Amino acid sequence: MKKVAIIMGSDSDWPVVKAAAVQLKAWEVPFEAHILSAHRTPEEAARFACSAREKGFGVIIAAAGMAAHLAGVLAGNTTLPVIGIPMKGGAVDGLDALLATVQMPSGVPVATVALNGAKNAAVLAAQILALSDEGLAQRLAAEKAEMKNQIAKKDAALQAELAAL
Amino acid sequence: MKKVAIIMGSDSDWPVVKAAAVQLKAWEVPFEAHILSAHRTPEEAARFACSAREKGFGVIIAAAGMAAHLAGVLAGNTTLPVIGIPMKGGAVDGLDALLATVQMPSGVPVATVALNGAKNAAVLAAQILALSDEGLAQRLAAEKAEMKNQIAKKDAALQAELAAL
Amino acid sequence: MKKVAIIMGSDSDWPVVKAAAVQLKAWEVPFEAHILSAHRTPEEAARFACSAREKGFGVIIAAAGMAAHLAGVLAGNTTLPVIGIPMKGGAVDGLDALLATVQMPSGVPVATVALNGAKNAAVLAAQILALSDEGLAQRLAAEKAEMKNQIAKKDAALQAELAAL
Amino acid sequence: MKKVAIIMGSDSDWPVVKAAAVQLKAWEVPFEAHILSAHRTPEEAARFACSAREKGFGVIIAAAGMAAHLAGVLAGNTTLPVIGIPMKGGAVDGLDALLATVQMPSGVPVATVALNGAKNAAVLAAQILALSDEGLAQRLAAEKAEMKNQIAKKDAALQAELAAL
Amino acid sequence: MKKVAIIMGSDSDWPVVKAAAVQLKAWEVPFEAHILSAHRTPEEAARFACSAREKGFGVIIAAAGMAAHLAGVLAGNTTLPVIGIPMKGGAVDGLDALLATVQMPSGVPVATVALNGAKNAAVLAAQILALSDEGLAQRLAAEKAEMKNQIAKKDAALQAELAAL
Amino acid sequence: MKKVAIIMGSDSDWPVVKAAAVQLKAWEVPFEAHILSAHRTPEEAARFACSAREKGFGVIIAAAGMAAHLAGVLAGNTTLPVIGIPMKGGAVDGLDALLATVQMPSGVPVATVALNGAKNAAVLAAQILALSDEGLAQRLAAEKAEMKNQIAKKDAALQAELAAL
Amino acid sequence: MKKVAIIMGSDSDWPVVKAAAVQLKAWEVPFEAHILSAHRTPEEAARFACSAREKGFGVIIAAAGMAAHLAGVLAGNTTLPVIGIPMKGGAVDGLDALLATVQMPSGVPVATVALNGAKNAAVLAAQILALSDEGLAQRLAAEKAEMKNQIAKKDAALQAELAAL
Amino acid sequence: MKKVAIIMGSDSDWPVVKAAAVQLKAWEVPFEAHILSAHRTPEEAARFACSAREKGFGVIIAAAGMAAHLAGVLAGNTTLPVIGIPMKGGAVDGLDALLATVQMPSGVPVATVALNGAKNAAVLAAQILALSDEGLAQRLAAEKAEMKNQIAKKDAALQAELAAL
Repeated sequence: MKKVAIIMGSDSDWPVVKAAAVQLKAWEVPFEAHILSAHRTPEEAARFACSAREKGFGVIIAAAGMAAHLAGVLAGNTTLPVIGIPMKGGAVDGLDALLATVQMPSGVPVATVALNGAKNAAVLAAQILALSDEGLAQRLAAEKAEMKNQIAKKDAALQAELAAL
Repeated sequence: MKKVAIIMGSDSDWPVVKAAAVQLKAWEVPFEAHILSAHRTPEEAARFACSAREKGFGVIIAAAGMAAHLAGVLAGNTTLPVIGIPMKGGAVDGLDALLATVQMPSGVPVATVALNGAKNAAVLAAQILALSDEGLAQRLAAEKAEMKNQIAKKDAALQAELAAL
Repeated sequence: MKKVAIIMGSDSDWPVVKAAAVQLKAWEVPFEAHILSAHRTPEEAARFACSAREKGFGVIIAAAGMAAHLAGVLAGNTTLPVIGIPMKGGAVDGLDALLATVQMPSGVPVATVALNGAKNAAVLAAQILALSDEGLAQRLAAEKAEMKNQIAKKDAALQAELAAL
Repeated sequence: MKKVAIIMGSDSDWPVVKAAAVQLKAWEVPFEAHILSAHRTPEEAARFACSAREKGFGVIIAAAGMAAHLAGVLAGNTTLPVIGIPMKGGAVDGLDALLATVQMPSGVPVATVALNGAKNAAVLAAQILALSDEGLAQRLAAEKAEMKNQIAKKDAALQAELAAL
Repeated sequence: MKKVAIIMGSDSDWPVVKAAAVQLKAWEVPFEAHILSAHRTPEEAARFACSAREKGFGVIIAAAGMAAHLAGVLAGNTTLPVIGIPMKGGAVDGLDALLATVQMPSGVPVATVALNGAKNAAVLAAQILALSDEGLAQRLAAEKAEMKNQIAKKDAALQAELAAL
Repeated sequence: MKKVAIIMGSDSDWPVVKAAAVQLKAWEVPFEAHILSAHRTPEEAARFACSAREKGFGVIIAAAGMAAHLAGVLAGNTTLPVIGIPMKGGAVDGLDALLATVQMPSGVPVATVALNGAKNAAVLAAQILALSDEGLAQRLAAEKAEMKNQIAKKDAALQAELAAL
Repeated sequence: MKKVAIIMGSDSDWPVVKAAAVQLKAWEVPFEAHILSAHRTPEEAARFACSAREKGFGVIIAAAGMAAHLAGVLAGNTTLPVIGIPMKGGAVDGLDALLATVQMPSGVPVATVALNGAKNAAVLAAQILALSDEGLAQRLAAEKAEMKNQIAKKDAALQAELAAL
Repeated sequence: MKKVAIIMGSDSDWPVVKAAAVQLKAWEVPFEAHILSAHRTPEEAARFACSAREKGFGVIIAAAGMAAHLAGVLAGNTTLPVIGIPMKGGAVDGLDALLATVQMPSGVPVATVALNGAKNAAVLAAQILALSDEGLAQRLAAEKAEMKNQIAKKDAALQAELAAL
């Protein structure tokens, strides 16, 4: 299976981004995680993206906040699908990172997930890789079934609480 | 190659969404396009998503405006990657569709592109399918090179205009 | 009297949504509360809405946050009035849930109340059911009178505080 | 059947609000329409709301733009359900009217529909009145079926266009 | 001197609004403060505004949050100048109350100050009354001079801190 | 009667601001209008504000767009009440001018009216001056009555149109 | 004198950006203008920034819209001052480009001017270069005086128009 | 070397603004810091800006929140480059200060950095002064290299943490 690259612009993003790594590990999707900045290590970021395909990566996840350029810069240097996680913490309650990540110009898309949506970035990466990996596709289907079960259990718990209202 | 499904919530979205169809056709990526509404034909939309994988689809593109639920509803019914195109035309200059598309809850991602970003949805779909199609990967690389050429040509034209300033 | 259904997308919404249940109970309006997700249990959510009328429900209250699709999805599957409570906690201080709930397309309204407005959702549901229940209408009128009394009491308390300024 | 009141803050709202009147007429829901302003005729607006129930109204629809107080002011003077239509044309592409309509304080809800959502206000009013009118309920169900048909027809037209792409 | 009325929509506004009362008291501007709600005591609010001029009031200050209708409703019932204080605490970090207060329709202005700007509402009221009260005008000028002094003192303290940097 | 000063930051504001001049003239309120810029003629703007009181002005109206500093700068140089008209035309559909006008720091209020609210600025100025001018107060009351009449006439016209629906 | 580089992400920006070129030419500030894209020609953009200082540039102006990464990417590759012009045309009436340009992380500033503020970018570049060029400083002072004159002339024209009101 | 002036509107800005002073001191860039308010000490603020050039200043940094007029007012009184730091703490999570700082009219730019971006204001000021100071240019280059090193170190630390996941 191709690998997933998790790139974040700052180590301060890790507490949120970690959820992507944990999810990929749980599904046995191979991944690497790195800190690379569009503004502080632009050359290294560009080089990583340029060589990602030949190094066996299939998807790149990029997390950044504020004027979040990281995902876009990586996308400009590869034709691999790039998933962007806009990080909260800048201005207007996260709107800066969201708009800076999603509003990419024609020809260079970034697949943007929700603000701080690290787990969803991992799910999306897995969905992409599962197109050519039946085992992973089944793990995704199982997860979907499990989410359904969780809701049912929580609904049952709610009924108990309602009875005591 | 797996097919791409282009789903839109209303035929009024077609003039914008058409760019995705045109791009996929140009790259010889097989696709279907349909009008299905999360609110007006919820059953059909759910059924389409549920059976999309077994019908040979690999990626679903969904375009909707205002309280844009279409991409999310499809994503809730499949483990295929779903790409969302938020459409302008509602409120706050498109912010309604963007937030309603991208802010998906944990476990059910939508790969959101820019407002009205139909071409980028096609590019992203092609990037995903190109992971297991070397020919498509090469067409994407060629497109990237061509974008570079276009910029160079436009810069040359600018120099001529500057000389006459 | 017809029943009210209170549906929430996650058990994490319950601490806020509970205010709706408490208010309905206080007014002896029959209700059920359930956890159902537009994205995690789409089939169950659709089925609930489809059969709600025949099961004796008259109004559906739906609470969800972020890309809040739940109310819209329920409204797409019933002709009962659906009241949407957008929940805070996502992005732009709640604007995501508000726009995703209220900006419904033509033909499929969601009666949206304020962010986290669980009590108001219950009041609105009661106002609707009171159209054919004189007793409930009187309880609503009594509540309105009581709100007036509360303001008068608080104004009296303020005068005391002002005297000591 | 109880009547619907359509109240608008200015005659300039009528070209948009008219869609509500047309829809109610088509479904044979009795209604009146009036121009009443929360700021220019506050006494008349309050008096209308106070006496609406005894005059046979079951639902009030109120349309206003900018600092849209009309729906809230009517709701403060009645326990009938009040539906608010925020009108575009003020600031921030309609956000002023939306927030001023929907963000009502506890105890006094306004059932807010989309910006300029006049038709949906009528649909919501009809859904409310249909709870005690089986004929109207059937007309609503028929409309829902017709919406489904329209989508199917438009999808068929799209297939023809796709063939010619 | 004419009196100032300080009206707030809820006693929960008092901790912020109190600053207006304290400032007016310090300048010996006569005032009354009351809790009156556009939605919970609409009749009392309208009656207050209608009779305010003849009761000796010269300016009305109105504080409200969320869909802040109070200032507008009072302004609709008087030709006295009405000052609006939009209160934080609703949605989009106060934008709801600000837009609902300031975006008044033609003919019925509300003199809006900053979010939670209680002291400035008092200053503005005093500036208005000072047009026919020379003593108050002098107290305002003295306050302006004192603000200047405060800045100078703080700048001196900063220089001390800088020396130790 | 004291005079009103209408100050605008650019002659391009005049087509909107003119409505204030026309209204004041109609009510026989003496006024002057000038173009003065906080950024291009800062000295002249400050000097105007400093001497406004002694020159017989009672109220200053200031209109500016974008980073609208004019009203605030004038308010910093006088203790006369300053009314700010935020002008549309900059960014985020006028939100820049609105926030830059209304969000004044403690001690230096600007009485902000709606975006492009030139007529309301004049009404507010007249309300302030009418506190010591009974004739003007009566003209304001007459205008309020006339607004009521206009609504009644428009409602009558609407009834005719409804009959023909 | 050091040169100014005017870089734009697309030739479609030129009609707005041209104002910067025209202004620099008028002040005889040497400049070059180029089309370089952070996403379509990332290598060329980085190379340009890396070598700009040694090629004699003193300031870089970068104009881009939507997820405007160009200025930030250039700033990541140089220690020259980089001025960013956010371009309108994307979402939320320009807020995307503004936030994506200005919200740079610590250590890598972009000197952001107003939306579409091409002339101001040129003025700022000239102000920077004028620190070591007395002639340019005098031209800037003359322009400031001329702006003052223009306001005075427009005020005179306004007085004529007022007389005829 | 020319001096940098750090001006802030209130001593409450100092805890954030201090980062600019600390950075300039570390790079041995001469600076002064003062508290001057566009609204409370307008004359002193204008006078400071008017005489800044002749007093040996080369760049002015101005920090202010809410309706942040300080940078613009200073820029109106000098042709030195003025850097604006919009401060958080007002409304809409800082959007008020950002728009009030950056949206300057044609002819009077403010070089705006990120919300609370005090360090970046210092970096930008140093970049400007480094155009005629080779030593400072080398310190800036060294800082850029050090940022790169920091990222590399943090990435190494991340690899250790990943190994233990």
